Amino acid sequence: MKTLVSVAEMQVAAAGVRGAGRSIGLVPTMGALHEGHLSLVRRAQQECDVTVVSVFVNPAQFGPNEDYLNYPRDPEHDRGRLEREGVDFLFAPTVEEMYPPGFQSYVTVEQVAAPLEGEFRPGHFRGVATVVAKLFQAVQPHRAYFGQKDAQQCVVVQRMVRDLHLPVEIVVCPIVRETDGLAMSSRNAYLNAEERRAALVLYRALSGARERLQQGERDSASIAAEMRRLIEQEPSARIDYAAVVDAETLAPVERVTGRVLVALAVWIGRVRLIDNVVVEEHDGRVTSLL
Amino acid sequence: MKTLVSVAEMQVAAAGVRGAGRSIGLVPTMGALHEGHLSLVRRAQQECDVTVVSVFVNPAQFGPNEDYLNYPRDPEHDRGRLEREGVDFLFAPTVEEMYPPGFQSYVTVEQVAAPLEGEFRPGHFRGVATVVAKLFQAVQPHRAYFGQKDAQQCVVVQRMVRDLHLPVEIVVCPIVRETDGLAMSSRNAYLNAEERRAALVLYRALSGARERLQQGERDSASIAAEMRRLIEQEPSARIDYAAVVDAETLAPVERVTGRVLVALAVWIGRVRLIDNVVVEEHDGRVTSLL
Repeated sequence: MKTLVSVAEMQVAAAGVRGAGRSIGLVPTMGALHEGHLSLVRRAQQECDVTVVSVFVNPAQFGPNEDYLNYPRDPEHDRGRLEREGVDFLFAPTVEEMYPPGFQSYVTVEQVAAPLEGEFRPGHFRGVATVVAKLFQAVQPHRAYFGQKDAQQCVVVQRMVRDLHLPVEIVVCPIVRETDGLAMSSRNAYLNAEERRAALVLYRALSGARERLQQGERDSASIAAEMRRLIEQEPSARIDYAAVVDAETLAPVERVTGRVLVALAVWIGRVRLIDNVVVEEHDGRVTSLL
Repeated sequence: MKTLVSVAEMQVAAAGVRGAGRSIGLVPTMGALHEGHLSLVRRAQQECDVTVVSVFVNPAQFGPNEDYLNYPRDPEHDRGRLEREGVDFLFAPTVEEMYPPGFQSYVTVEQVAAPLEGEFRPGHFRGVATVVAKLFQAVQPHRAYFGQKDAQQCVVVQRMVRDLHLPVEIVVCPIVRETDGLAMSSRNAYLNAEERRAALVLYRALSGARERLQQGERDSASIAAEMRRLIEQEPSARIDYAAVVDAETLAPVERVTGRVLVALAVWIGRVRLIDNVVVEEHDGRVTSLL
């Protein structure tokens, strides 16, 4: 595995790969790699000739009171895991490389970035869209792999790619869960044993919502209310949102029809977790996706 | 000359050119082509294997009370001129192709887009940066050619390219003037004979500023005041700005040192014209650039 730290050398390497007629798969990460990330890496390896994993904790996507400084960082552990997976390139730029003095250009996506995470993390998706656009220019990937865990991020990136004609195919991969159902997340490392147990309430609430949908419930407010009721039974939990929205526009839906995203953001103590399930209603039948 | 109207076919054509190891030069225009545009075309042809001229009147860079609907359009005349110049590709997408329903992603550049045009045309440079980023993705140019007439546009585009790592070299070409000094502009077509004469006041004011600089004047306020005084003698003229700013940051300068932009925006009747001169002070001597 070759480690590159500058955009210029990454662009040269990418041009070499492309010039040889080989395809590039990019897995953008903030490090603290877990099985969720590795599932993206393996998918990229299956579908592309050369796999690039970027590790960059992006300050632009954290709010001033968020966990940028404390975000889990373990570069040696990450490097070892990527080596063992047979990754071709690790792209690990510094903050100074990505945001040098005088930096002032941003990509913004409007409507789909506004609700859910956008409401509770103002500026978050401006930071995400900007860094993803920059990573795409640095790595010049044919395909880029994102986890469905960050469902709204996937929608925002797909919208940006379409609107700006970025020549990249976005591949969204299923959520990877612990055996008890907790969605894998770098932030799970913040949880103590008691919080780890309490954090299961997200999965239980989503599973309950899916069951009610499969049993014929179509009223979004009722599904959201039942999720809230269940989560509020957990004393350490505090809800940011529990929402049922259109899976493409992220606009609220009154009745479930077509493809909808059931999304949660819940604080467990001082740890903020998100999780979701996508369900598709068609001719009265509901299937869950991802 | 091949005319392409969809982004997808433009991308395929660009990939073909790049795949054959040939370089692409892009000249982005809003049509109503004049000798200023053609100077960019000829420069692109000298420096690149294949020249693409885009013609797209970009609604996103016009304010609600600006001249989008009345902007001069003459596609047949433009096509003829580009044919005669031996241009390889004309890229002429429709508004629906560039901004389909649901479009919502924008590129913004902050500080350098704020003063001068940014103050009088809010949102203008968001529209410019967005469409230029989109054209770059569609045409995949090695080099892109812009006219110094739109000095702030050049600075904004250069900043965007650097910040987002767009793999394009920006080439800024000198202002082309009529024999009496009026900077060429598609909007000159709006001027009646009397206004055409009055419009010369911009060039006279800039020439005067340059002379005073060459004679040793270094006080920006004094240079700006003298330009205003001269322009205000013209009854049909109304000044939006007459400014002396740092040529890279576009921040105001008190005393002229290094490279500065002397920039004007002046209404002549109902026609808004801009013009500028770049001067470089070095070791007490002043040279004018472009």
